[in-house]
Amino acid sequence: MTHGRFITFEGGEGAGKSTQVGRLVERLRERHLEVVQTREPGGSQGAEEIRAIALNGDAGRWSPMTETMLMFAARSDHLEKTIRPALEAGRWVVCDRFADSSRAYQGAGGGAPEAFIESLDAAIVGATQPDLTLIFDLPVEIGLERAFGRGLFETRFESKGLEFHERLRRRFLEIAKEKSDRCVVIDAVGDEEAVAARVWAAVEGRLL
Amino acid sequence: MTHGRFITFEGGEGAGKSTQVGRLVERLRERHLEVVQTREPGGSQGAEEIRAIALNGDAGRWSPMTETMLMFAARSDHLEKTIRPALEAGRWVVCDRFADSSRAYQGAGGGAPEAFIESLDAAIVGATQPDLTLIFDLPVEIGLERAFGRGLFETRFESKGLEFHERLRRRFLEIAKEKSDRCVVIDAVGDEEAVAARVWAAVEGRLL
Repeated sequence: MTHGRFITFEGGEGAGKSTQVGRLVERLRERHLEVVQTREPGGSQGAEEIRAIALNGDAGRWSPMTETMLMFAARSDHLEKTIRPALEAGRWVVCDRFADSSRAYQGAGGGAPEAFIESLDAAIVGATQPDLTLIFDLPVEIGLERAFGRGLFETRFESKGLEFHERLRRRFLEIAKEKSDRCVVIDAVGDEEAVAARVWAAVEGRLL
Repeated sequence: MTHGRFITFEGGEGAGKSTQVGRLVERLRERHLEVVQTREPGGSQGAEEIRAIALNGDAGRWSPMTETMLMFAARSDHLEKTIRPALEAGRWVVCDRFADSSRAYQGAGGGAPEAFIESLDAAIVGATQPDLTLIFDLPVEIGLERAFGRGLFETRFESKGLEFHERLRRRFLEIAKEKSDRCVVIDAVGDEEAVAARVWAAVEGRLL
């Protein structure tokens, strides 16, 4: 077994994903695993350039269809330049957001047709599906309050209305049921230590 | 009849498309038609930003799949912000390159699967197919010599090998046969006046 494992973190805003990605990577490295920590959109030079134009600007700058195309263009580059080479070299890849974010944000949130997103997923992600997806779940109000507590809204998604974020949350929970072979819902309410313990239990139970 | 007409110019490098786009637009305006002159990739603010990252850099910077996604992301924005609003307002749109360039450059040239490109065309272009596509044809050596005569290669496509450009030419001629309802091949050898006369004959015969 020389192929690495691919773990993705998904969920709405302010769920603490980025912090927990860092903690998990550290813990895996303590086990002497080689780990690549990455994120979407981005994670390769070209994908980071696409990120810069995809995420900035007015909330309505891109239509859901155009946004979907940009996200999968970035994902395509990220897979080719970062994710697949790492997995093939036996490294683990821990990624902050991946294709389920397109299903939730551009699909359920923006209204891009689900069939369109699935056809892009089949063409671009193909067989490189995550081995484990941790879906961070918490009430929308708590998440947005946390995101707001960071001092400013980081991306134009955070500035969309409460109802938008409710749709995302419902879609993420649906995905967890539809793709239960790879998805585990993580209760993201509570302190950092408690959430880290839940993450570790899921990783240990599924992959170690 | 309040809907405008949509004319696209296609073909390889150095075929004189851009010059002829300008001449056709002028001639249509002399007929008191309202005409929007545009180009791909680009033609809207967002699409021009995508163009900047899609066309620059090393020849192998993007894989054919990623490049296809970027081109259709730009096309999606261009259609939504520029082409469809103009056509709906009764204006004519004359566009330097459109979806057939993806079929030729990313498909035949780069190797992106034809079925993938057609599925994106169906999803993004949909019913907004050109009313007339002028496919500029000339021997590859002449075209590249002309492009080189402009003093430098404008885009990283021009720096690819002769065999790449031969594949493009063959594909464009195939498209002209497959989609003969909207395509006319324009012999692009000869002086500017002669080619302009051929363009005008095609436009007059098909649309006026």
